[in-house]
Amino acid sequence: MAAAPTQAPPLTPEELADKHRPTLERALEAIRTREYWSPYPEHPKAYGEEHGTLGPAEGKSAFDTLLGGRFELDQPGTDGWVGGEVSPYGVELGVEYPHADVGALLPAMRAALPAWRDAGPRVRALVCLEILARINARTHEFAHAVMHTSGQAYLMAMQAGGPHAQDRGLEAVAYAYAEQTRTPASARWSKPQGKRDPLELGKEFTPVPRGVSLMIGCNTFPTWNGYPGLFASLATGNPVLVKPHPRAVLPLAMTVRVAREVLAEAGFDPNTVALAAERDGEGIARELALRPEVRIIDYTGSTAFGDWLEANARQAQVFTEKAGVNTIVVDSTDDYRGMLGNLAFSLSLYSGQMCTTPQNLLVPRGGIDTDAGHKSYEEFTADLAGAVDKLLGDDQRAAALLGAIVNPGVRERLEGASELGETILASRAVEHPEFPGATVRTPAIVGLDGAKPESEEVCMSECFGPVSFAVAVDSTAEAVELLRRTVREKGAMTVGAYTTSPEVERLVEEACLEECAQLSLNLTGGVYVNQTAAFSDFHGSGGNPAANAALCDGAFVASRFRVVEVRRQA
Amino acid sequence: MAAAPTQAPPLTPEELADKHRPTLERALEAIRTREYWSPYPEHPKAYGEEHGTLGPAEGKSAFDTLLGGRFELDQPGTDGWVGGEVSPYGVELGVEYPHADVGALLPAMRAALPAWRDAGPRVRALVCLEILARINARTHEFAHAVMHTSGQAYLMAMQAGGPHAQDRGLEAVAYAYAEQTRTPASARWSKPQGKRDPLELGKEFTPVPRGVSLMIGCNTFPTWNGYPGLFASLATGNPVLVKPHPRAVLPLAMTVRVAREVLAEAGFDPNTVALAAERDGEGIARELALRPEVRIIDYTGSTAFGDWLEANARQAQVFTEKAGVNTIVVDSTDDYRGMLGNLAFSLSLYSGQMCTTPQNLLVPRGGIDTDAGHKSYEEFTADLAGAVDKLLGDDQRAAALLGAIVNPGVRERLEGASELGETILASRAVEHPEFPGATVRTPAIVGLDGAKPESEEVCMSECFGPVSFAVAVDSTAEAVELLRRTVREKGAMTVGAYTTSPEVERLVEEACLEECAQLSLNLTGGVYVNQTAAFSDFHGSGGNPAANAALCDGAFVASRFRVVEVRRQA
Repeated sequence: MAAAPTQAPPLTPEELADKHRPTLERALEAIRTREYWSPYPEHPKAYGEEHGTLGPAEGKSAFDTLLGGRFELDQPGTDGWVGGEVSPYGVELGVEYPHADVGALLPAMRAALPAWRDAGPRVRALVCLEILARINARTHEFAHAVMHTSGQAYLMAMQAGGPHAQDRGLEAVAYAYAEQTRTPASARWSKPQGKRDPLELGKEFTPVPRGVSLMIGCNTFPTWNGYPGLFASLATGNPVLVKPHPRAVLPLAMTVRVAREVLAEAGFDPNTVALAAERDGEGIARELALRPEVRIIDYTGSTAFGDWLEANARQAQVFTEKAGVNTIVVDSTDDYRGMLGNLAFSLSLYSGQMCTTPQNLLVPRGGIDTDAGHKSYEEFTADLAGAVDKLLGDDQRAAALLGAIVNPGVRERLEGASELGETILASRAVEHPEFPGATVRTPAIVGLDGAKPESEEVCMSECFGPVSFAVAVDSTAEAVELLRRTVREKGAMTVGAYTTSPEVERLVEEACLEECAQLSLNLTGGVYVNQTAAFSDFHGSGGNPAANAALCDGAFVASRFRVVEVRRQA
Repeated sequence: MAAAPTQAPPLTPEELADKHRPTLERALEAIRTREYWSPYPEHPKAYGEEHGTLGPAEGKSAFDTLLGGRFELDQPGTDGWVGGEVSPYGVELGVEYPHADVGALLPAMRAALPAWRDAGPRVRALVCLEILARINARTHEFAHAVMHTSGQAYLMAMQAGGPHAQDRGLEAVAYAYAEQTRTPASARWSKPQGKRDPLELGKEFTPVPRGVSLMIGCNTFPTWNGYPGLFASLATGNPVLVKPHPRAVLPLAMTVRVAREVLAEAGFDPNTVALAAERDGEGIARELALRPEVRIIDYTGSTAFGDWLEANARQAQVFTEKAGVNTIVVDSTDDYRGMLGNLAFSLSLYSGQMCTTPQNLLVPRGGIDTDAGHKSYEEFTADLAGAVDKLLGDDQRAAALLGAIVNPGVRERLEGASELGETILASRAVEHPEFPGATVRTPAIVGLDGAKPESEEVCMSECFGPVSFAVAVDSTAEAVELLRRTVREKGAMTVGAYTTSPEVERLVEEACLEECAQLSLNLTGGVYVNQTAAFSDFHGSGGNPAANAALCDGAFVASRFRVVEVRRQA
């Protein structure tokens, strides 16, 4: 791939517009109405040769050809090769990625900026949509890459790592486009001066990017959590440097390769997007984050490093998603069975390794009223344990829901869970039918007495992974108070509540409005508290300690660029 | 004024809508088209009894009754009275303001938040418009308060401190309203599931404020620089605490009083807006800025304190306008006379005490081509000095343009200016025809040789006040390089250029796009580089060291609130 193609670019703005304008317009409508919409099908069978895309088998074989080889990107400043990903399913990927001399790569990216800025919001959006379309066509190939880095089960990796991640990328492009075009490109200004001639000025308004944008990827959702920042920055004119988690490089390296291909074909410098893979333990994010060229950072990961970025990367706009403690208030329900099934699924999906998985179930110790009669705390927790057991009774089905434990830290926390309180449901190891090396575990449920001071310490710390706490509290009112305190002090990506009482509903809503948390009420069907849909649901609020940004809103894009005005006497 | 009126509120949402909805809609249109518009007349004679507003005489007498008395606001936690403003025109105002125990005031403001949040974006915008309308009706009264705190001449105080400040407030309300309503209040989400029933959710979206917003006012433009942040925060649901500059309290105390009156009449807690006046040397801003209740800060003032706020008030979103160094590149012109007149006015207006006043005039030492023939550096600088002399030849007219020197620091800098380089135009003292105690000075122009290393140090430091530097540079290309460096390192609120060369125009534009500065080209008529018009011009870019925010854009409002979503199974 040449840095600047010498032949006429094969992708013209007109072609891109013909292909993608309707999608962009529909996305702009979706973020206004927030009704259901997605251009990227989530059914595995929606992909295949007949659709011009890679089907399941082709995706698998495309993935296989990547293994054990060098992942060439033809980036400037490559000073070596790094790699060492081992799938949570036990397979060594053996892929090597270019290691960058950032002193050479960052200036090359900076040099790519003017042409990308001058392309304007419309062309940038269309190029982003072409990148997303090509990624979408290879959804099954990406699915394997996500599966074997995050440990997600295949179907989840295919959906959350594929179309849902692409949706979140497109959503960010739509917000970026809307934000940049709310000011017109030019205006004529004529101010009346009574009997004298009016004052007349011609004005031009140009959105200008901040500089290089750094996206720091995470292990569990490399594409889903990475695409919003990547595409928001790219669509607003900023070159994007992608720094993947060392254990989840491949999905983002593939993303960078597609982006560079499309940029070059459209006549732009491929260095507008680049990869910064790192040596094990190199800790390159800390160095990159303080580089003067880096003016935007998107980060998903630990609170400690997120806080460090916010405090130290002062030259940059920093968007973070950090740790949080998610709560479900269980007060009452008119669909006990539905509630148990919904909760069991939420606790089990991807072994609870989602930033949105509920951790604390707050239950009045006097029990709850349900359509199946009053249930004591003990009955409810036993029934919930039973629902999880039933959901995961079959190993094959369990593995397809749980995926694999992403790293030893999660496994160790799970193994230590029984010491934190009373074991309501013990975790068990599941044999993976296909990958014997996979660490697959069912979730543990631990009972805590909310009246004991040590319980609060336990339940108000994030215990990332398949551990949840059933906390017995004196009353629903106390549950709401604990919810408030948890969100205020620890942050939360999600809050859930089950109640048939309008008064309790009002109390929980008020708490979420005050503490700025996203609330799901009485979910008993096929929508789960830990899932949000692009174009409609906000992921996080940006207003509590779990994250300073929400996916996706105006605030997520508005400060990624500035408007420069040139005015001339007319 | 009672904290909660017991009778039915006299201002209903319907009345407010009847009165203000057309204005809000027109403002929303104006920020989209960026054509000229203002609902607040700037002609002094547009105010008077026949318009239901205070005319010049009534305004003066309303102002006079405020002098020498206590300015009662009926705020909770008042623990004493403070004051001591002395007009730059030599008059002691003798007004005392309530001093707040912030430990009592901030909780009272926090308590006002839920009702203001629940009012929703539309009612909040309408209440803000009523506040602005009442301020507008008292424009002449405010004009005297602005004049006798900032030192602005009366006409400027009346216009910039009156309708133009009100415009900037309304602009912020319009952006805030647009931003909060781009997400609908509710949505129905229906996701197809093939042959099964679709997944159905009802969703509600509520904009929620961050918390208490702190507006730290400045000495020179208490209303113009204060209103954008005040109204942006108020319109997005945040209670606003106004901390005026100790020498410019009155215009903002009057603003707070009007806001509290309107809030109470509309049935809201008047503590939604409050004043924090301080004792001389108390430095209360530093304490307020770190209070946990304070989640937004708007600040105009020194770079040192602005940087401190950005680094330390980490619990808050911090919007700053700090110092900068504004440059004019003088390359060539086809209207020499117009250029001289325009520059002379820009340098003289309010004694150069505007954050937008040009400081460095970069002139090729070989001279410039003009419609009046080639002019050497010496000829141009002499002609500019002559234009200033002519503009300010008559003391009465000079005083009406210059206003008064706002503080001793500015006077001292002016007095030291002759030591910085060659005196091209010496400052002279002007007798104020009405206020013998006023310090009125004409601007000084100092010549610098750009080739001398010490010149760069001089011209790259902000010399706030009526001092500008005519810097001889080797070429226009060198001027553009110095412009770039100045904006990058010191920041700039404005950049101007005069040129007849499309190539030079392109070079300067490119520099402004790269360094993110607002550019005025070839202004030779009645629009000046130091003036920006609300609804059309951006004030600052937010992208260089002079300010991290621009007035007004999406970024100025988008992060002042968050959206909380409540979703329910349908």
